[in-house]
Amino acid sequence: MIDKNTKIAVIGLGVLGGSYVQALSAKGYHCTGIDIDENTIALAKDKGWIEKGGRDPQLVKDADLVVFALYPHVFVNWLKENQQYLKAGCLITDVTGVKREVIRSVNEILRKDVEFIACHPMAGRESRGIHFADASRFEKANFIIVPTENNTQEAIETMKQLASLLGFTRISQLSAEEHDRMIGFLSQLTHVIAVSLMNVSDNTHLVDYTGDSFRDLTRIAKINEDMWPELFILNKDNLVREINDFSDELLRFRDLLVNEDTEGMKQKMIQSTERRKKFDR
Amino acid sequence: MIDKNTKIAVIGLGVLGGSYVQALSAKGYHCTGIDIDENTIALAKDKGWIEKGGRDPQLVKDADLVVFALYPHVFVNWLKENQQYLKAGCLITDVTGVKREVIRSVNEILRKDVEFIACHPMAGRESRGIHFADASRFEKANFIIVPTENNTQEAIETMKQLASLLGFTRISQLSAEEHDRMIGFLSQLTHVIAVSLMNVSDNTHLVDYTGDSFRDLTRIAKINEDMWPELFILNKDNLVREINDFSDELLRFRDLLVNEDTEGMKQKMIQSTERRKKFDR
Repeated sequence: MIDKNTKIAVIGLGVLGGSYVQALSAKGYHCTGIDIDENTIALAKDKGWIEKGGRDPQLVKDADLVVFALYPHVFVNWLKENQQYLKAGCLITDVTGVKREVIRSVNEILRKDVEFIACHPMAGRESRGIHFADASRFEKANFIIVPTENNTQEAIETMKQLASLLGFTRISQLSAEEHDRMIGFLSQLTHVIAVSLMNVSDNTHLVDYTGDSFRDLTRIAKINEDMWPELFILNKDNLVREINDFSDELLRFRDLLVNEDTEGMKQKMIQSTERRKKFDR
Repeated sequence: MIDKNTKIAVIGLGVLGGSYVQALSAKGYHCTGIDIDENTIALAKDKGWIEKGGRDPQLVKDADLVVFALYPHVFVNWLKENQQYLKAGCLITDVTGVKREVIRSVNEILRKDVEFIACHPMAGRESRGIHFADASRFEKANFIIVPTENNTQEAIETMKQLASLLGFTRISQLSAEEHDRMIGFLSQLTHVIAVSLMNVSDNTHLVDYTGDSFRDLTRIAKINEDMWPELFILNKDNLVREINDFSDELLRFRDLLVNEDTEGMKQKMIQSTERRKKFDR
Protein backbone atom coordinates (compact mmCIF):
# COMPACT_ATOMS: atom_id res chain seq x y z
CA MET A 1 0.00 0.00 0.00
CA ILE A 2 1.00 3.62 -0.42
CA ASP A 3 2.23 5.64 2.54
CA LYS A 4 4.13 8.87 2.92
CA ASN A 5 7.44 7.00 2.45
CA THR A 6 6.34 5.50 -0.85
CA LYS A 7 8.39 6.88 -3.68
CA ILE A 8 6.21 7.55 -6.72
CA ALA A 9 7.46 8.26 -10.24
CA VAL A 10 5.22 9.49 -13.05
CA ILE A 11 6.51 9.13 -16.59
CA GLY A 12 4.89 11.54 -19.04
CA LEU A 13 3.62 14.78 -17.53
CA GLY A 14 0.81 15.58 -19.96
CA VAL A 15 -2.77 16.31 -18.97
CA LEU A 16 -3.14 13.05 -17.06
CA GLY A 17 0.39 12.62 -15.71
CA GLY A 18 0.45 16.28 -14.73
CA SER A 19 -2.85 15.90 -12.88
CA TYR A 20 -1.47 12.84 -11.06
CA VAL A 21 1.55 14.68 -9.65
CA GLN A 22 -0.63 17.70 -8.90
CA ALA A 23 -3.06 15.62 -6.83
CA LEU A 24 -0.42 13.46 -5.13
CA SER A 25 1.89 16.34 -4.19
CA ALA A 26 -1.08 18.23 -2.75
CA LYS A 27 -1.58 15.31 -0.35
CA GLY A 28 2.07 15.30 0.66
CA TYR A 29 3.40 12.40 -1.39
CA HIS A 30 6.88 12.48 -2.91
CA CYS A 31 6.80 12.44 -6.68
CA THR A 32 9.49 12.22 -9.31
CA GLY A 33 8.58 13.33 -12.83
CA ILE A 34 10.06 12.10 -16.08
CA ASP A 35 9.31 13.87 -19.34
CA ILE A 36 11.19 14.56 -22.55
CA ASP A 37 10.22 18.25 -22.42
CA GLU A 38 12.39 20.32 -20.10
CA ASN A 39 9.85 23.15 -19.82
CA THR A 40 7.30 20.66 -18.56
CA ILE A 41 9.71 19.48 -15.87
CA ALA A 42 10.56 23.06 -14.93
CA LEU A 43 6.87 23.92 -14.59
CA ALA A 44 6.12 20.84 -12.48
CA LYS A 45 9.00 21.70 -10.17
CA ASP A 46 7.98 25.32 -10.01
CA LYS A 47 4.47 24.38 -8.94
CA GLY A 48 5.86 22.00 -6.32
CA TRP A 49 4.23 19.00 -8.00
CA ILE A 50 7.50 17.04 -8.26
CA GLU A 51 10.56 17.01 -6.04
CA LYS A 52 12.91 15.95 -8.76
CA GLY A 53 12.60 15.34 -12.44
CA GLY A 54 14.14 15.28 -15.84
CA ARG A 55 14.32 13.21 -19.00
CA ASP A 56 16.73 10.59 -17.63
CA PRO A 57 15.04 7.16 -17.35
CA GLN A 58 17.34 6.32 -14.44
CA LEU A 59 15.24 8.69 -12.31
CA VAL A 60 12.86 5.75 -11.73
CA LYS A 61 15.42 3.68 -9.91
CA ASP A 62 14.20 4.40 -6.36
CA ALA A 63 10.49 4.38 -7.16
CA ASP A 64 8.17 1.89 -5.44
CA LEU A 65 5.30 2.83 -7.72
CA VAL A 66 5.72 3.96 -11.33
CA VAL A 67 2.84 5.45 -13.33
CA PHE A 68 3.23 5.46 -17.12
CA ALA A 69 1.11 8.28 -18.55
CA LEU A 70 2.22 7.71 -22.14
CA TYR A 71 0.68 6.67 -25.44
CA PRO A 72 0.55 2.84 -25.62
CA HIS A 73 3.44 2.30 -28.02
CA VAL A 74 5.61 4.84 -26.19
CA PHE A 75 4.92 3.02 -22.93
CA VAL A 76 5.90 -0.36 -24.38
CA ASN A 77 9.00 1.07 -26.06
CA TRP A 78 10.07 2.74 -22.82
CA LEU A 79 9.95 -0.62 -21.05
CA LYS A 80 11.90 -2.32 -23.81
CA GLU A 81 14.66 0.25 -23.57
CA ASN A 82 14.70 1.13 -19.89
CA GLN A 83 13.13 -1.51 -17.71
CA GLN A 84 16.52 -2.45 -16.31
CA TYR A 85 16.32 0.76 -14.24
CA LEU A 86 13.12 -0.27 -12.46
CA LYS A 87 13.57 -1.25 -8.82
CA ALA A 88 13.09 -4.96 -8.09
CA GLY A 89 9.64 -5.51 -6.57
CA CYS A 90 8.18 -2.21 -7.72
CA LEU A 91 4.63 -1.89 -8.98
CA ILE A 92 3.95 -0.25 -12.34
CA THR A 93 0.65 1.00 -13.73
CA ASP A 94 -0.63 2.98 -16.70
CA VAL A 95 -3.44 5.25 -17.93
CA THR A 96 -4.01 3.96 -21.46
CA GLY A 97 -7.49 3.92 -22.95
CA VAL A 98 -7.38 0.37 -24.36
CA LYS A 99 -6.33 -2.65 -22.38
CA ARG A 100 -6.14 -6.11 -24.01
CA GLU A 101 -3.24 -5.34 -26.33
CA VAL A 102 -1.37 -3.16 -23.85
CA ILE A 103 -1.56 -5.79 -21.12
CA ARG A 104 -0.43 -8.50 -23.56
CA SER A 105 2.50 -6.47 -24.91
CA VAL A 106 3.69 -5.37 -21.48
CA ASN A 107 3.45 -8.78 -19.84
CA GLU A 108 5.29 -10.33 -22.76
CA ILE A 109 8.39 -8.27 -22.13
CA LEU A 110 8.21 -7.23 -18.48
CA ARG A 111 10.80 -8.40 -15.94
CA LYS A 112 9.42 -11.07 -13.65
CA ASP A 113 10.30 -9.15 -10.49
CA VAL A 114 8.04 -6.21 -11.41
CA GLU A 115 4.22 -6.30 -11.35
CA PHE A 116 2.12 -4.41 -13.89
CA ILE A 117 -1.48 -3.57 -13.04
CA ALA A 118 -3.48 -1.83 -15.75
CA CYS A 119 -5.72 1.13 -14.96
CA HIS A 120 -7.81 3.57 -16.98
CA PRO A 121 -8.62 6.92 -15.40
CA MET A 122 -11.45 8.07 -17.71
CA ALA A 123 -10.62 11.74 -17.47
CA GLY A 124 -8.90 12.49 -20.74
CA ARG A 125 -9.63 15.59 -22.73
CA GLU A 126 -8.75 17.00 -26.10
CA SER A 127 -6.25 19.56 -24.78
CA ARG A 128 -2.68 18.42 -24.38
CA GLY A 129 0.14 19.20 -22.03
CA ILE A 130 0.77 19.93 -18.39
CA HIS A 131 -0.79 23.40 -18.72
CA PHE A 132 -4.18 21.68 -18.91
CA ALA A 133 -3.56 19.42 -15.90
CA ASP A 134 -6.49 19.76 -13.51
CA ALA A 135 -6.95 17.10 -10.86
CA SER A 136 -10.33 18.54 -9.86
CA ARG A 137 -11.74 16.78 -12.93
CA PHE A 138 -11.06 13.40 -11.33
CA GLU A 139 -13.83 13.74 -8.77
CA LYS A 140 -16.69 12.95 -11.14
CA ALA A 141 -14.76 10.67 -13.48
CA ASN A 142 -14.43 6.89 -13.51
CA PHE A 143 -11.26 5.10 -12.47
CA ILE A 144 -11.24 1.58 -13.82
CA ILE A 145 -8.83 -1.07 -12.54
CA VAL A 146 -8.27 -3.82 -15.09
CA PRO A 147 -6.60 -6.74 -13.29
CA THR A 148 -5.56 -10.01 -14.85
CA GLU A 149 -5.17 -13.41 -13.19
CA ASN A 150 -1.50 -12.56 -12.73
CA ASN A 151 -2.18 -9.59 -10.46
CA THR A 152 -1.86 -9.80 -6.69
CA GLN A 153 -4.72 -8.71 -4.47
CA GLU A 154 -2.34 -6.22 -2.92
CA ALA A 155 -1.73 -4.53 -6.27
CA ILE A 156 -5.49 -4.18 -6.77
CA GLU A 157 -5.91 -2.66 -3.30
CA THR A 158 -3.00 -0.30 -3.95
CA MET A 159 -4.70 0.93 -7.13
CA LYS A 160 -7.96 1.55 -5.23
CA GLN A 161 -5.95 3.58 -2.77
CA LEU A 162 -4.15 5.46 -5.56
CA ALA A 163 -7.49 6.30 -7.20
CA SER A 164 -8.81 7.65 -3.90
CA LEU A 165 -5.69 9.72 -3.32
CA LEU A 166 -6.08 11.17 -6.81
CA GLY A 167 -9.61 12.25 -5.94
CA PHE A 168 -11.65 9.67 -7.82
CA THR A 169 -14.84 8.59 -6.10
CA ARG A 170 -16.12 6.24 -8.81
CA ILE A 171 -13.70 3.31 -8.77
CA SER A 172 -14.50 -0.02 -10.39
CA GLN A 173 -12.96 -3.19 -11.82
CA LEU A 174 -13.44 -4.73 -15.24
CA SER A 175 -11.72 -7.47 -17.17
CA ALA A 176 -9.69 -6.29 -20.16
CA GLU A 177 -12.33 -7.76 -22.49
CA GLU A 178 -15.20 -6.00 -20.73
CA HIS A 179 -13.24 -2.76 -20.61
CA ASP A 180 -12.40 -2.72 -24.30
CA ARG A 181 -15.96 -3.60 -25.33
CA MET A 182 -17.34 -0.83 -23.15
CA ILE A 183 -14.81 1.71 -24.44
CA GLY A 184 -15.47 0.67 -28.04
CA PHE A 185 -19.10 1.68 -27.66
CA LEU A 186 -19.21 4.54 -25.14
CA SER A 187 -16.07 6.36 -26.13
CA GLN A 188 -14.58 5.23 -29.43
CA LEU A 189 -17.80 4.92 -31.47
CA THR A 190 -19.00 8.30 -30.20
CA HIS A 191 -15.75 9.92 -31.30
CA VAL A 192 -16.01 8.32 -34.75
CA ILE A 193 -19.58 9.64 -35.03
CA ALA A 194 -18.60 13.18 -34.06
CA VAL A 195 -15.58 13.19 -36.39
CA SER A 196 -17.65 11.83 -39.28
CA LEU A 197 -20.45 14.33 -38.71
CA MET A 198 -17.97 17.19 -39.11
CA ASN A 199 -16.35 15.56 -42.14
CA VAL A 200 -19.42 14.58 -44.14
CA SER A 201 -19.43 18.00 -45.77
CA ASP A 202 -18.20 21.48 -45.03
CA ASN A 203 -21.16 22.93 -43.17
CA THR A 204 -19.26 25.65 -41.36
CA HIS A 205 -21.40 28.25 -43.17
CA LEU A 206 -24.28 27.05 -40.98
CA VAL A 207 -22.61 28.25 -37.79
CA ASP A 208 -25.16 31.06 -37.32
CA TYR A 209 -28.04 28.60 -37.18
CA THR A 210 -26.36 26.09 -34.93
CA GLY A 211 -27.95 25.31 -31.59
CA ASP A 212 -26.85 23.35 -28.56
CA SER A 213 -27.77 19.94 -30.00
CA PHE A 214 -25.29 20.10 -32.84
CA ARG A 215 -22.59 21.57 -30.62
CA ASP A 216 -23.14 18.86 -28.00
CA LEU A 217 -22.98 16.15 -30.62
CA THR A 218 -19.75 17.37 -32.18
CA ARG A 219 -17.78 18.67 -29.20
CA ILE A 220 -15.55 15.57 -29.26
CA ALA A 221 -14.81 16.06 -32.97
CA LYS A 222 -11.95 18.18 -31.62
CA ILE A 223 -9.68 15.25 -31.04
CA ASN A 224 -6.01 14.45 -30.48
CA GLU A 225 -5.03 13.04 -33.85
CA ASP A 226 -1.71 11.73 -32.55
CA MET A 227 -3.30 9.47 -29.94
CA TRP A 228 -6.68 8.22 -31.14
CA PRO A 229 -5.75 6.32 -34.31
CA GLU A 230 -3.47 4.14 -32.20
CA LEU A 231 -6.20 3.53 -29.60
CA PHE A 232 -8.66 2.67 -32.38
CA ILE A 233 -6.31 0.18 -34.02
CA LEU A 234 -5.61 -1.48 -30.66
CA ASN A 235 -9.37 -2.05 -30.29
CA LYS A 236 -10.11 -2.65 -33.96
CA ASP A 237 -12.33 -5.74 -33.58
CA ASN A 238 -14.69 -4.01 -31.15
CA LEU A 239 -14.77 -0.67 -32.88
CA VAL A 240 -15.34 -2.02 -36.39
CA ARG A 241 -18.24 -4.10 -35.05
CA GLU A 242 -19.72 -1.05 -33.28
CA ILE A 243 -19.47 1.10 -36.41
CA ASN A 244 -21.12 -1.61 -38.50
CA ASP A 245 -23.92 -2.16 -35.99
CA PHE A 246 -24.55 1.56 -35.66
CA SER A 247 -24.56 2.07 -39.41
CA ASP A 248 -27.06 -0.79 -39.80
CA GLU A 249 -29.34 0.81 -37.20
CA LEU A 250 -29.07 4.18 -38.94
CA LEU A 251 -30.07 2.62 -42.24
CA ARG A 252 -32.99 0.77 -40.62
CA PHE A 253 -34.25 4.17 -39.48
CA ARG A 254 -33.71 5.58 -42.96
CA ASP A 255 -35.81 2.77 -44.42
CA LEU A 256 -38.67 3.55 -42.02
CA LEU A 257 -38.48 7.14 -43.23
CA VAL A 258 -38.33 6.16 -46.89
CA ASN A 259 -41.49 4.09 -46.33
CA GLU A 260 -43.08 6.94 -44.35
CA ASP A 261 -43.61 4.43 -41.56
CA THR A 262 -44.71 6.85 -38.85
CA GLU A 263 -45.52 4.10 -36.36
CA GLY A 264 -42.12 2.43 -36.86
CA MET A 265 -40.25 5.71 -36.30
CA LYS A 266 -42.42 6.41 -33.27
CA GLN A 267 -41.47 3.08 -31.70
CA LYS A 268 -37.77 3.82 -32.26
CA MET A 269 -38.21 7.19 -30.55
CA ILE A 270 -40.13 5.75 -27.61
CA GLN A 271 -37.35 3.19 -27.09
CA SER A 272 -34.54 5.74 -27.38
CA THR A 273 -36.33 8.07 -24.96
CA GLU A 274 -36.83 5.31 -22.39
CA ARG A 275 -33.23 4.11 -22.60
CA ARG A 276 -31.75 7.59 -22.52
CA LYS A 277 -33.68 8.44 -19.36
CA LYS A 278 -31.67 5.79 -17.53
CA PHE A 279 -28.54 7.80 -18.29
CA ASP A 280 -29.89 11.00 -16.73
CA ARG A 281 -27.96 11.97 -13.66
CA MET B 1 -46.62 46.54 -37.48
CA ILE B 2 -47.52 45.51 -33.97
CA ASP B 3 -48.58 48.10 -31.40
CA LYS B 4 -50.37 47.97 -28.09
CA ASN B 5 -53.74 47.91 -29.86
CA THR B 6 -52.81 44.90 -31.97
CA LYS B 7 -54.90 41.91 -31.02
CA ILE B 8 -52.81 38.75 -30.99
CA ALA B 9 -54.16 35.21 -30.85
CA VAL B 10 -51.99 32.17 -30.22
CA ILE B 11 -53.41 28.77 -31.14
CA GLY B 12 -51.82 25.89 -29.26
CA LEU B 13 -50.37 26.78 -25.87
CA GLY B 14 -47.63 24.16 -25.63
CA VAL B 15 -43.99 24.90 -24.86
CA LEU B 16 -43.67 27.35 -27.77
CA GLY B 17 -47.17 28.86 -27.80
CA GLY B 18 -47.06 29.20 -24.03
CA SER B 19 -43.71 30.97 -24.22
CA TYR B 20 -45.12 33.34 -26.86
CA VAL B 21 -48.03 34.51 -24.68
CA GLN B 22 -45.72 34.65 -21.66
CA ALA B 23 -43.29 36.98 -23.46
CA LEU B 24 -45.95 39.10 -25.16
CA SER B 25 -48.13 39.60 -22.08
CA ALA B 26 -45.05 40.59 -20.09
CA LYS B 27 -44.55 43.44 -22.57
CA GLY B 28 -48.17 44.57 -22.24
CA TYR B 29 -49.67 43.07 -25.41
CA HIS B 30 -53.19 41.67 -25.47
CA CYS B 31 -53.27 37.95 -26.16
CA THR B 32 -56.03 35.48 -26.72
CA GLY B 33 -55.21 31.80 -26.29
CA ILE B 34 -56.86 28.85 -28.00
CA ASP B 35 -56.15 25.31 -26.84
CA ILE B 36 -58.11 22.09 -26.66
CA ASP B 37 -57.03 21.55 -23.04
CA GLU B 38 -59.02 23.55 -20.52
CA ASN B 39 -56.40 23.23 -17.78
CA THR B 40 -53.88 24.84 -20.12
CA ILE B 41 -56.24 27.75 -20.72
CA ALA B 42 -56.93 28.08 -17.00
CA LEU B 43 -53.22 28.16 -16.23
CA ALA B 44 -52.50 30.75 -18.93
CA LYS B 45 -55.27 32.96 -17.56
CA ASP B 46 -54.12 32.45 -14.00
CA LYS B 47 -50.61 33.57 -14.90
CA GLY B 48 -51.99 36.60 -16.72
CA TRP B 49 -50.49 35.44 -20.01
CA ILE B 50 -53.83 35.62 -21.88
CA GLU B 51 -56.82 37.88 -21.40
CA LYS B 52 -59.32 35.47 -22.82
CA GLY B 53 -59.15 31.94 -24.08
CA GLY B 54 -60.81 28.61 -24.65
CA ARG B 55 -61.15 25.89 -27.25
CA ASP B 56 -63.61 27.75 -29.49
CA PRO B 57 -62.02 28.61 -32.88
CA GLN B 58 -64.25 31.69 -33.11
CA LEU B 59 -62.00 33.29 -30.49
CA VAL B 60 -59.70 34.32 -33.39
CA LYS B 61 -62.26 36.56 -35.01
CA ASP B 62 -60.88 39.90 -33.71
CA ALA B 63 -57.22 39.01 -34.02
CA ASP B 64 -54.92 41.05 -36.26
CA LEU B 65 -52.08 38.56 -35.84
CA VAL B 66 -52.61 34.84 -35.35
CA VAL B 67 -49.75 32.52 -34.35
CA PHE B 68 -50.27 28.80 -34.99
CA ALA B 69 -48.12 26.84 -32.54
CA LEU B 70 -49.36 23.44 -33.69
CA TYR B 71 -47.98 20.33 -35.35
CA PRO B 72 -47.98 20.83 -39.14
CA HIS B 73 -50.99 18.65 -39.99
CA VAL B 74 -53.00 20.07 -37.08
CA PHE B 75 -52.24 23.58 -38.33
CA VAL B 76 -53.39 22.77 -41.87
CA ASN B 77 -56.50 20.96 -40.63
CA TRP B 78 -57.40 23.86 -38.38
CA LEU B 79 -57.31 26.18 -41.38
CA LYS B 80 -59.43 23.82 -43.48
CA GLU B 81 -62.09 23.68 -40.80
CA ASN B 82 -61.98 27.15 -39.28
CA GLN B 83 -60.41 29.73 -41.56
CA GLN B 84 -63.79 31.37 -42.10
CA TYR B 85 -63.40 32.82 -38.59
CA LEU B 86 -60.18 34.67 -39.42
CA LYS B 87 -60.54 38.43 -39.73
CA ALA B 88 -60.14 39.78 -43.26
CA GLY B 89 -56.68 41.29 -43.67
CA CYS B 90 -55.16 39.54 -40.70
CA LEU B 91 -51.62 38.14 -40.73
CA ILE B 92 -51.01 34.53 -39.74
CA THR B 93 -47.72 32.86 -38.88
CA ASP B 94 -46.48 29.53 -37.49
CA VAL B 95 -43.64 27.86 -35.59
CA THR B 96 -43.24 24.60 -37.51
CA GLY B 97 -39.82 23.04 -37.93
CA VAL B 98 -40.10 22.29 -41.67
CA LYS B 99 -41.17 24.79 -44.26
CA ARG B 100 -41.52 23.81 -47.93
CA GLU B 101 -44.48 21.47 -47.47
CA VAL B 102 -46.19 23.59 -44.81
CA ILE B 103 -46.00 26.72 -46.95
CA ARG B 104 -47.28 24.83 -49.98
CA SER B 105 -50.21 23.23 -48.11
CA VAL B 106 -51.24 26.43 -46.38
CA ASN B 107 -51.06 28.63 -49.46
CA GLU B 108 -53.05 26.07 -51.44
CA ILE B 109 -56.05 26.42 -49.15
CA LEU B 110 -55.72 29.83 -47.50
CA ARG B 111 -58.25 32.60 -48.13
CA LYS B 112 -56.87 35.29 -50.40
CA ASP B 113 -57.59 38.09 -47.93
CA VAL B 114 -55.27 36.60 -45.30
CA GLU B 115 -51.45 36.58 -45.50
CA PHE B 116 -49.36 33.70 -44.17
CA ILE B 117 -45.72 34.28 -43.33
CA ALA B 118 -43.76 31.24 -42.17
CA CYS B 119 -41.39 31.44 -39.22
CA HIS B 120 -39.29 28.98 -37.26
CA PRO B 121 -38.33 29.91 -33.71
CA MET B 122 -35.55 27.35 -33.09
CA ALA B 123 -36.26 26.97 -29.40
CA GLY B 124 -38.08 23.66 -29.16
CA ARG B 125 -37.31 21.13 -26.49
CA GLU B 126 -38.27 17.59 -25.65
CA SER B 127 -40.62 18.53 -22.81
CA ARG B 128 -44.21 19.22 -23.72
CA GLY B 129 -46.94 21.46 -22.42
CA ILE B 130 -47.40 24.95 -21.06
CA HIS B 131 -45.72 23.98 -17.78
CA PHE B 132 -42.41 23.99 -19.64
CA ALA B 133 -42.99 27.36 -21.30
CA ASP B 134 -39.96 29.56 -20.66
CA ALA B 135 -39.50 32.63 -22.84
CA SER B 136 -36.06 33.27 -21.38
CA ARG B 137 -34.82 30.51 -23.69
CA PHE B 138 -35.53 32.70 -26.72
CA GLU B 139 -32.68 35.07 -26.04
CA LYS B 140 -29.93 32.80 -27.32
CA ALA B 141 -32.00 30.95 -29.91
CA ASN B 142 -32.46 31.60 -33.62
CA PHE B 143 -35.64 33.04 -35.08
CA ILE B 144 -35.82 32.33 -38.79
CA ILE B 145 -38.25 34.12 -41.07
CA VAL B 146 -39.01 32.12 -44.21
CA PRO B 147 -40.71 34.44 -46.69
CA THR B 148 -41.91 33.53 -50.16
CA GLU B 149 -42.33 35.76 -53.19
CA ASN B 150 -45.98 36.18 -52.12
CA ASN B 151 -45.13 37.86 -48.84
CA THR B 152 -45.31 41.62 -48.36
CA GLN B 153 -42.34 43.52 -47.00
CA GLU B 154 -44.61 44.69 -44.20
CA ALA B 155 -45.26 41.11 -43.09
CA ILE B 156 -41.51 40.45 -43.00
CA GLU B 157 -40.92 43.57 -40.92
CA THR B 158 -43.77 42.61 -38.59
CA MET B 159 -42.14 39.22 -38.00
CA LYS B 160 -38.80 40.87 -37.20
CA GLN B 161 -40.66 43.01 -34.69
CA LEU B 162 -42.48 39.98 -33.26
CA ALA B 163 -39.20 38.11 -32.85
CA SER B 164 -37.71 41.10 -31.00
CA LEU B 165 -40.74 41.38 -28.73
CA LEU B 166 -40.41 37.67 -27.93
CA GLY B 167 -36.83 38.26 -26.85
CA PHE B 168 -34.94 36.79 -29.80
CA THR B 169 -31.72 38.58 -30.68
CA ARG B 170 -30.62 36.29 -33.50
CA ILE B 171 -33.12 36.91 -36.29
CA SER B 172 -32.49 35.87 -39.88
CA GLN B 173 -34.18 35.08 -43.19
CA LEU B 174 -33.87 31.98 -45.31
CA SER B 175 -35.75 30.61 -48.29
CA ALA B 176 -37.85 27.53 -47.57
CA GLU B 177 -35.36 25.42 -49.54
CA GLU B 178 -32.36 26.76 -47.62
CA HIS B 179 -34.20 26.37 -44.33
CA ASP B 180 -35.17 22.75 -44.89
CA ARG B 181 -31.69 21.79 -46.08
CA MET B 182 -30.13 23.41 -43.01
CA ILE B 183 -32.63 21.76 -40.65
CA GLY B 184 -32.13 18.38 -42.35
CA PHE B 185 -28.46 18.47 -41.42
CA LEU B 186 -28.18 20.44 -38.18
CA SER B 187 -31.30 19.24 -36.44
CA GLN B 188 -32.92 16.23 -38.07
CA LEU B 189 -29.80 14.19 -38.86
CA THR B 190 -28.45 14.80 -35.36
CA HIS B 191 -31.70 13.54 -33.83
CA VAL B 192 -31.60 10.41 -36.02
CA ILE B 193 -28.00 9.80 -34.91
CA ALA B 194 -28.84 10.16 -31.21
CA VAL B 195 -31.93 7.96 -31.50
CA SER B 196 -30.02 5.29 -33.43
CA LEU B 197 -27.13 5.31 -30.97
CA MET B 198 -29.52 4.50 -28.14
CA ASN B 199 -31.31 1.85 -30.20
CA VAL B 200 -28.34 -0.02 -31.63
CA SER B 201 -28.28 -2.23 -28.54
CA ASP B 202 -29.40 -2.07 -24.95
CA ASN B 203 -26.33 -0.59 -23.31
CA THR B 204 -28.07 0.77 -20.24
CA HIS B 205 -25.92 -1.55 -18.08
CA LEU B 206 -22.99 0.73 -18.99
CA VAL B 207 -24.50 3.70 -17.18
CA ASP B 208 -21.86 3.59 -14.42
CA TYR B 209 -19.05 4.07 -16.93
CA THR B 210 -20.72 6.78 -18.94
CA GLY B 211 -19.04 10.16 -19.19
CA ASP B 212 -20.08 13.51 -20.54
CA SER B 213 -19.34 12.69 -24.18
CA PHE B 214 -21.89 9.94 -24.45
CA ARG B 215 -24.47 11.94 -22.50
CA ASP B 216 -23.91 14.99 -24.73
CA LEU B 217 -24.25 12.90 -27.85
CA THR B 218 -27.49 11.23 -26.81
CA ARG B 219 -29.31 14.00 -24.93
CA ILE B 220 -31.64 14.56 -27.90
CA ALA B 221 -32.50 10.84 -28.05
CA LYS B 222 -35.22 11.88 -25.61
CA ILE B 223 -37.57 13.03 -28.31
CA ASN B 224 -41.25 13.85 -28.85
CA GLU B 225 -42.38 10.80 -30.80
CA ASP B 226 -45.69 12.41 -31.74
CA MET B 227 -44.08 15.32 -33.54
CA TRP B 228 -40.80 14.26 -35.11
CA PRO B 229 -41.89 11.49 -37.51
CA GLU B 230 -44.16 14.04 -39.21
CA LEU B 231 -41.36 16.61 -39.44
CA PHE B 232 -39.02 13.96 -40.87
CA ILE B 233 -41.53 12.87 -43.52
CA LEU B 234 -42.14 16.49 -44.54
CA ASN B 235 -38.39 16.82 -45.18
CA LYS B 236 -37.80 13.31 -46.45
CA ASP B 237 -35.68 14.14 -49.48
CA ASN B 238 -33.18 16.18 -47.48
CA LEU B 239 -33.04 13.86 -44.48
CA VAL B 240 -32.65 10.65 -46.46
CA ARG B 241 -29.78 12.24 -48.36
CA GLU B 242 -28.13 13.40 -45.12
CA ILE B 243 -28.43 9.95 -43.54
CA ASN B 244 -26.94 8.32 -46.63
CA ASP B 245 -24.07 10.79 -46.84
CA PHE B 246 -23.31 10.45 -43.15
CA SER B 247 -23.42 6.67 -43.29
CA ASP B 248 -21.03 6.70 -46.25
CA GLU B 249 -18.62 8.92 -44.33
CA LEU B 250 -18.84 6.63 -41.30
CA LEU B 251 -18.00 3.61 -43.44
CA ARG B 252 -15.11 5.45 -45.08
CA PHE B 253 -13.69 5.93 -41.60
CA ARG B 254 -14.32 2.28 -40.79
CA ASP B 255 -12.36 1.26 -43.89
CA LEU B 256 -9.40 3.41 -42.81
CA LEU B 257 -9.52 1.57 -39.47
CA VAL B 258 -9.82 -1.85 -41.10
CA ASN B 259 -6.73 -1.03 -43.14
CA GLU B 260 -4.97 0.35 -40.05
CA ASP B 261 -4.44 3.53 -42.04
CA THR B 262 -3.14 5.73 -39.23
CA GLU B 263 -2.34 8.63 -41.54
CA GLY B 264 -5.80 8.54 -43.12
CA MET B 265 -7.53 8.59 -39.73
CA LYS B 266 -5.23 11.36 -38.60
CA GLN B 267 -6.23 13.53 -41.56
CA LYS B 268 -9.91 12.96 -40.80
CA MET B 269 -9.30 14.06 -37.20
CA ILE B 270 -7.32 17.13 -38.17
CA GLN B 271 -10.16 18.18 -40.49
CA SER B 272 -12.90 17.54 -37.93
CA THR B 273 -10.95 19.45 -35.28
CA GLU B 274 -10.43 22.43 -37.58
CA ARG B 275 -14.07 22.56 -38.67
CA ARG B 276 -15.46 22.08 -35.19
CA LYS B 277 -13.38 24.97 -33.86
CA LYS B 278 -15.40 27.30 -36.06
CA PHE B 279 -18.51 26.30 -34.11
CA ASP B 280 -17.00 27.22 -30.73
CA ARG B 281 -18.77 30.14 -29.15
